[in-house]
Amino acid sequence: MTNEKTGSLYYSDYLELDKILNSQHPRSADLPNGADDEMLFIVVHQAYELWFKQIIHELNLVREIFSQDNINDNSGDMSNAVHKLKRIVRILELLNHQVDVLDTMTPLDFLEFRNLLLPSSGFQSVQFRLIEAKLGLKMKQRYKADYYKHTRTGGFLQNDYEKINQAESQSTLKDLIIKWAKRTPFFDKSLWSEYQSLYQPGNNADKFWHDYKRIYQESLSASEQGRLDELDRVFFREGRSEFSVAAMRAVLFITLYRNLPIFHMPFELLGVLIEIDELLSNWRYKHLLMVRRMIGMRVGTGGTTGAGYLEGALSQHYIFKELTEMSTFLVERSRLPDLPNAVKEKTSFNVR
Amino acid sequence: MTNEKTGSLYYSDYLELDKILNSQHPRSADLPNGADDEMLFIVVHQAYELWFKQIIHELNLVREIFSQDNINDNSGDMSNAVHKLKRIVRILELLNHQVDVLDTMTPLDFLEFRNLLLPSSGFQSVQFRLIEAKLGLKMKQRYKADYYKHTRTGGFLQNDYEKINQAESQSTLKDLIIKWAKRTPFFDKSLWSEYQSLYQPGNNADKFWHDYKRIYQESLSASEQGRLDELDRVFFREGRSEFSVAAMRAVLFITLYRNLPIFHMPFELLGVLIEIDELLSNWRYKHLLMVRRMIGMRVGTGGTTGAGYLEGALSQHYIFKELTEMSTFLVERSRLPDLPNAVKEKTSFNVR
Amino acid sequence: MTNEKTGSLYYSDYLELDKILNSQHPRSADLPNGADDEMLFIVVHQAYELWFKQIIHELNLVREIFSQDNINDNSGDMSNAVHKLKRIVRILELLNHQVDVLDTMTPLDFLEFRNLLLPSSGFQSVQFRLIEAKLGLKMKQRYKADYYKHTRTGGFLQNDYEKINQAESQSTLKDLIIKWAKRTPFFDKSLWSEYQSLYQPGNNADKFWHDYKRIYQESLSASEQGRLDELDRVFFREGRSEFSVAAMRAVLFITLYRNLPIFHMPFELLGVLIEIDELLSNWRYKHLLMVRRMIGMRVGTGGTTGAGYLEGALSQHYIFKELTEMSTFLVERSRLPDLPNAVKEKTSFNVR
Amino acid sequence: MTNEKTGSLYYSDYLELDKILNSQHPRSADLPNGADDEMLFIVVHQAYELWFKQIIHELNLVREIFSQDNINDNSGDMSNAVHKLKRIVRILELLNHQVDVLDTMTPLDFLEFRNLLLPSSGFQSVQFRLIEAKLGLKMKQRYKADYYKHTRTGGFLQNDYEKINQAESQSTLKDLIIKWAKRTPFFDKSLWSEYQSLYQPGNNADKFWHDYKRIYQESLSASEQGRLDELDRVFFREGRSEFSVAAMRAVLFITLYRNLPIFHMPFELLGVLIEIDELLSNWRYKHLLMVRRMIGMRVGTGGTTGAGYLEGALSQHYIFKELTEMSTFLVERSRLPDLPNAVKEKTSFNVR
Repeated sequence: MTNEKTGSLYYSDYLELDKILNSQHPRSADLPNGADDEMLFIVVHQAYELWFKQIIHELNLVREIFSQDNINDNSGDMSNAVHKLKRIVRILELLNHQVDVLDTMTPLDFLEFRNLLLPSSGFQSVQFRLIEAKLGLKMKQRYKADYYKHTRTGGFLQNDYEKINQAESQSTLKDLIIKWAKRTPFFDKSLWSEYQSLYQPGNNADKFWHDYKRIYQESLSASEQGRLDELDRVFFREGRSEFSVAAMRAVLFITLYRNLPIFHMPFELLGVLIEIDELLSNWRYKHLLMVRRMIGMRVGTGGTTGAGYLEGALSQHYIFKELTEMSTFLVERSRLPDLPNAVKEKTSFNVR
Repeated sequence: MTNEKTGSLYYSDYLELDKILNSQHPRSADLPNGADDEMLFIVVHQAYELWFKQIIHELNLVREIFSQDNINDNSGDMSNAVHKLKRIVRILELLNHQVDVLDTMTPLDFLEFRNLLLPSSGFQSVQFRLIEAKLGLKMKQRYKADYYKHTRTGGFLQNDYEKINQAESQSTLKDLIIKWAKRTPFFDKSLWSEYQSLYQPGNNADKFWHDYKRIYQESLSASEQGRLDELDRVFFREGRSEFSVAAMRAVLFITLYRNLPIFHMPFELLGVLIEIDELLSNWRYKHLLMVRRMIGMRVGTGGTTGAGYLEGALSQHYIFKELTEMSTFLVERSRLPDLPNAVKEKTSFNVR
Repeated sequence: MTNEKTGSLYYSDYLELDKILNSQHPRSADLPNGADDEMLFIVVHQAYELWFKQIIHELNLVREIFSQDNINDNSGDMSNAVHKLKRIVRILELLNHQVDVLDTMTPLDFLEFRNLLLPSSGFQSVQFRLIEAKLGLKMKQRYKADYYKHTRTGGFLQNDYEKINQAESQSTLKDLIIKWAKRTPFFDKSLWSEYQSLYQPGNNADKFWHDYKRIYQESLSASEQGRLDELDRVFFREGRSEFSVAAMRAVLFITLYRNLPIFHMPFELLGVLIEIDELLSNWRYKHLLMVRRMIGMRVGTGGTTGAGYLEGALSQHYIFKELTEMSTFLVERSRLPDLPNAVKEKTSFNVR
Repeated sequence: MTNEKTGSLYYSDYLELDKILNSQHPRSADLPNGADDEMLFIVVHQAYELWFKQIIHELNLVREIFSQDNINDNSGDMSNAVHKLKRIVRILELLNHQVDVLDTMTPLDFLEFRNLLLPSSGFQSVQFRLIEAKLGLKMKQRYKADYYKHTRTGGFLQNDYEKINQAESQSTLKDLIIKWAKRTPFFDKSLWSEYQSLYQPGNNADKFWHDYKRIYQESLSASEQGRLDELDRVFFREGRSEFSVAAMRAVLFITLYRNLPIFHMPFELLGVLIEIDELLSNWRYKHLLMVRRMIGMRVGTGGTTGAGYLEGALSQHYIFKELTEMSTFLVERSRLPDLPNAVKEKTSFNVR
């Protein structure tokens, strides 16, 4: 990796540009009139893949942090995890922007080499599927899961298909977040002994939640009363969603009392997970608009119905849906019960 | 509008900042703890409305150009129209970006003043509805058209409702584009007398289109043959869509032979109309994601089901759908019939 | 502010659109051929001013937080301040984007109405000057400070000139940040009694700083040894800059030990202040490029030399320069001395 | 390049992802604690290089177009060239955005692996230097040209140094644009025989320019009269700049009479060249801000003074300066002399 003359490191060696810049071989090169725009098509997708690799790199580091048996709030772990997830946000913003570059290719110019690429397709990006899987999307939740099968034309090679399945079998970020939230220690019985329930006698965290239900009910207009069942299902009955009741209570509690110091980073964490979901969605949407313009109603190169597939994935491939929907269950700050001092203290800094 | 001291123009007078900067009166100001974020909410929407005014300004100028009985290709008209539409594109890109600013408001902070705004709603932006209408969206094509009615809570005031209806009754940009396309003079019989049909004897523009149908058929794979009916409907049978057969033929012809000088600007025009549609769509989509995060499944302030309404409008409020779908009907350049010299000459510059 | 018919709030009333949308009166309207682009010019600048108002709103709230005698780390204050400053970042990103819209005006189109605006000028935006002043820019630090004087053509009205001066006489954000940093309590003698100096006997925070100096020196290459004086000046001798030695030590310490829980938000704070400076700079730079293209070497409407003035302000109007330059004085993490347990404990959460 | 199982093309084979995704080997991998962020550093720069390759690809195609002895206005050449240059604009916008991703790396995290990269440096990107050279930047115009020499530590390898020099020895885009502008045929004597000079008897293109000088003079305020010499130098005396008088006259003429059909594309061409210059400048500026924050006043890895070098290049590496400055010499449309019919006809379409 060094300058052959001086023995010292040289830019192009460090970046292995001999490989990076010699990996563009347009299939249309053999045609009498090569398709000038195929180079763009290749470079755009290679740039995507580079960034996907980076996203996976960050995602693995974040999953490592959350895989610890116990995240020490006094380490930099939470802060590091949030920092890395925010970097993923910046990368996804860039990838959204990148669609605008491919947009400079006209449908007629694409047609010059489109058929040469059959049946390969952007659908087959293993890294993108790994990102979805590592975040928490299961194969069975995917739109038209059988499209992915290695036995299908336009599907994945067996090896790649297995990689995707394997990724979801490891702890996904969503699994780890649920585990982390569930374990949040501020609902320990000991901390709630002085809680003053607003409506019922009693002094534990559970009373808090019954109070909250009542407060929520009062905040609903007549036509909204149906929401109460919804709250019941999410925060009182197990098994409604991938998030357990304990995990959902924790994330709502963090959201409501985000000003408590120990919740600063967790609150940012919840926000950044939602942002990642939204940016992936917006990327799929921009992609859908582009494909619609590029190939109209035609079948995608991978044999999918192009825009049709993308539209299905768009509405189905949400990962942190439960976090987004939590805003349904918020009430105004002024309605919130006051917390017992023991809880406040436990969630604060050591300074007086 | 002048500096009272020197009689010369002063920045804040020119911009009428006394009005612009004194139009923010948060409803929460009377509350014990005013909601700090309501100012943001107001300013974001006022900035939207300023830009909507600018879009309407440009749109009116473009409609004026296309309202002429005959657009003179040798004037700067086409070039000016494209320039103005590209400006609208830039503004819409900005408006897409602007969503990110409102995204900095958390659901809990929004809840502090949300109820004070009922039943007003962003749905009621007259200017946004005028933009849609002036582009070419009809009331009957709108998702849940009865939401707009002035008789409905959360609907428009009578006066505003009429403004929207009136806008669509004038020539919309879509109407004018169709009229312009239909009239394109390069299908004059006189120009095609030397056309060599590939398949059938004959020498007129109509032969060209029968040739094209055959070429298209040959470009389709076995599983795509159904597309032929589609082409038939769009380019041979009247009444299938708002675009007449003549207009659709013209836009396809411009797309295929965009290198002919007289088509440079028209080709850019078609592209920029599609871009406007896409940016409006993407704005609606970003808006939808934001609303979903902000109010979850709750009812929007205007009494619509919030995200639900936006999702409906998203897929239904396309204006220039026909242009986007045209890429379904393209064939590779190498398959295109050669044009008669008379056509080439007519569509070229006067030089040499 | 209510729908006159139903007594309920209506969108356009809430937003006071009667004022917002009736404040555009192009001076060229009286010309035989009004200049179409003057509307854009007005709207762009009004949108800027709306956003400036919002920035000032947030800035005032942040200054209020830091004006407290003692910021309670266990309140949500720091977190709120950072949140509001991040919103300013998002707004400044938008304003950078907004330059692209004005870029769609050609120099020739600007010339149609340019002279009608004389001698008013964007230079005269009081709100922009207030933002600079409230952040911490002093009149005497401004490039060509006499341009601002109310006695000068193209300068400010007396009233406005005084507003700017008054803003800098109040506690600026920079003043408050310095005061906050200086007061940071983790250098209390009591906490450092067990500190093990690497080089010298002794056990106080001051030993830490002498150790740091030595570590820094060892990290410098031969040609960089001159930097040591620089470090000496900044971290050991008073009066070198607006930041006192104590304040500079605090910000460096926060940067180095950002993983300590109590530093999470302060570290984000330092980063976001730098970002604000950079975005303002980049906005000035984009503005400079635009002006250069728009009026070439001509004199700006305010009588400044246009691009020349902007270039001067560009390099001189940095506010948090000291924070940016701090990276000169960092050393690798592995070289950092271990902190005494008392310091670690004091800066951690109450949880074990 | 085909799916080994089915013989059909597979996504990852087409994109040669085996090479693209196996070219990241952080130098810090051997350290006890590898630097997590070095991967980001590598990927960002590899993505830059991919896009640089694409820019060079487009630039070569554009240079090919302009290298023809005679560009046929009736071919699609001009339109294609503008299209490709606009694509470069979109890519440069993306690269400006990409800086924000690297911005997520903190100075302390960079320091973990910074020294391992010495003396390699982003300065050594051959492709970026080729882009500058192919656009038209000469080695002697570069800031600190001796930094590039292959004999200098941190400079280029001999082979690369020669590549850069060779690129500027071929026809650069600037050379070709000047040649193209000079040759523009609308100043043919024959076309101007009916020109009515406003001030002097005479009827040729030269009279037009003398008229223009007079008109320009009248448009200047008293304090601006010095500009007249400037106009004289640029449009009447050879040798002032790389643009010949004939070329400068042509670009000004195109700008003034952009509504003539044959000037539509040339006018867009001039605009897009300025945009490329501005985006490169803005990229350098954002880069400068980032480096300043990342390494403060320290020396860059390549031994340059980091931010100092970038600042020098910023103000010196303009390519199409003459085009930007042309706006100094514009006058209002209403003052423009009417053109002889022969000129109007020659520059119009064949349609009546």
